[in-house]
Amino acid sequence: MTLRDELLSAGVLVDAGSPGVYGRSAAYEAVVAGLEQLIGEPGSRVVRFPPVESRAAFVGSGYLGSFPDLLGSISTFRGDDKDHAALLRTHEAGGDWTAGLVPADVVLAPAVCHPLYPTLAGDVGAGTYDVSGWVFRAEPSEDVARMQAFRQHDLVYVGTPDGAEAARGKWLDRATATFAELGIPVERVVANDPFFGRAGRVLSVGQRSEELKYELVCEVSSADRPTAIGSGNLHRDHFGEAYGIHCDGAVAHSACFGYGLDRITLALLRHHGVDVTAWPSAVRERLGL
Amino acid sequence: MTLRDELLSAGVLVDAGSPGVYGRSAAYEAVVAGLEQLIGEPGSRVVRFPPVESRAAFVGSGYLGSFPDLLGSISTFRGDDKDHAALLRTHEAGGDWTAGLVPADVVLAPAVCHPLYPTLAGDVGAGTYDVSGWVFRAEPSEDVARMQAFRQHDLVYVGTPDGAEAARGKWLDRATATFAELGIPVERVVANDPFFGRAGRVLSVGQRSEELKYELVCEVSSADRPTAIGSGNLHRDHFGEAYGIHCDGAVAHSACFGYGLDRITLALLRHHGVDVTAWPSAVRERLGL
Repeated sequence: MTLRDELLSAGVLVDAGSPGVYGRSAAYEAVVAGLEQLIGEPGSRVVRFPPVESRAAFVGSGYLGSFPDLLGSISTFRGDDKDHAALLRTHEAGGDWTAGLVPADVVLAPAVCHPLYPTLAGDVGAGTYDVSGWVFRAEPSEDVARMQAFRQHDLVYVGTPDGAEAARGKWLDRATATFAELGIPVERVVANDPFFGRAGRVLSVGQRSEELKYELVCEVSSADRPTAIGSGNLHRDHFGEAYGIHCDGAVAHSACFGYGLDRITLALLRHHGVDVTAWPSAVRERLGL
Repeated sequence: MTLRDELLSAGVLVDAGSPGVYGRSAAYEAVVAGLEQLIGEPGSRVVRFPPVESRAAFVGSGYLGSFPDLLGSISTFRGDDKDHAALLRTHEAGGDWTAGLVPADVVLAPAVCHPLYPTLAGDVGAGTYDVSGWVFRAEPSEDVARMQAFRQHDLVYVGTPDGAEAARGKWLDRATATFAELGIPVERVVANDPFFGRAGRVLSVGQRSEELKYELVCEVSSADRPTAIGSGNLHRDHFGEAYGIHCDGAVAHSACFGYGLDRITLALLRHHGVDVTAWPSAVRERLGL
């Protein structure tokens, strides 16, 4: 039985009718809330964004070039009574009722730290930020660790190049220790993001050779293909350039560490069993359960 | 100064670059978390859904007919390298890069209880459910109480016609008392949903004359136009019919009470001031602040 089937049959997850879209039980949510309490950086500025972000900001991030196949663009209806009647007729005839929709001014946020950077335009001092929320990736999958809608909690550093490397290193070490306390053995590997297409292969080689992203991986849904439950990313001056963020007069560098809240919860369910009440007491205590 | 401007200048909200899309501060989120603790129904089944729901389930709800102008349909890219290059060229030339996208199998959830009903297909006993999460309505507005992305917490009853009326009445009374304890004076009014177009006017008259929906309203962003911060809805057999939900052999009736978590938070900020630390101690205590 796959982990997905185990979780569905135990009622920990509820099939919401689309691959990678699930309802979560109270027990599952208590674990996520417990994880949230373990994540933070003293002195950081806490901001919580909704699951959608400004279309202009999204386009400015360069996501369109790197991961077009994962994006979620939002469209809506701006017609009149006549257009509405036509839309309903199209739908009733089994046609594509979305054909007459127009792009909304927002898209789904593909990463929880993305909405932050545009709000920092200008000269900011070096600092850290704490963001957490829902993100979307259009990859319907039966692999329960590859959801379309899931939660990330990111610690973000914005400032100098040295500060960015130091923050990423510190957060990778801290998360590794936290995962060990929770009984999840992780391995640190150089990441291999699924950049799109032929041009993407070049980006992927660059990411690996510069070691821009490390992932903390462990077994979740498959022993053969370990799953990243956290990752530390060095953005260099990517977001600083894209949104005009400066620090001490120079283009700001940034880094983030992302905790995959749903994937960590799944890793815990995989390693300690689908009955949260039967988890080791040390793990339950650490999560405040 | 509008409430929106006050909240932005106090840093309680952060302008995320699109009307009705805001980042929230730690103080704001503490209030939302405090409200969440006050809402619940003993014995109810707790389920948490992501901000997206299955397209098929969404279409089955009838939303397309009633509120097409509020929907958020999601589309994504399913092309190859050549299509990707064309998309990027269109974007660089200032064209509509979304033209080549295709509908995803999910849409944004327009109400937090919607994803629940399809999961109840079959014969269920009478029961109550507790859902909470992010919803989307495509109505860009400078009115801070009219966000595009916001949170709802709903208590839902599914069962018999009498049970549905009783649950709605009980929850309306309870919420009115909770709001009074929080220092928010509300008025109970028959609701007037913005059904779309000419056909919508008929639906609206029916909703009013049957008193299917009551709202608890108070002053938030404008003294002239009070804002609904909670509402009790009688669905009759609408969702039972749409998704094949039965109770004791008959089509199930349902009702829900929805708490507008962001609007209640805004109402508190409007009535007690934008500095949460200066709120009356009784209100802070009630919210666990």
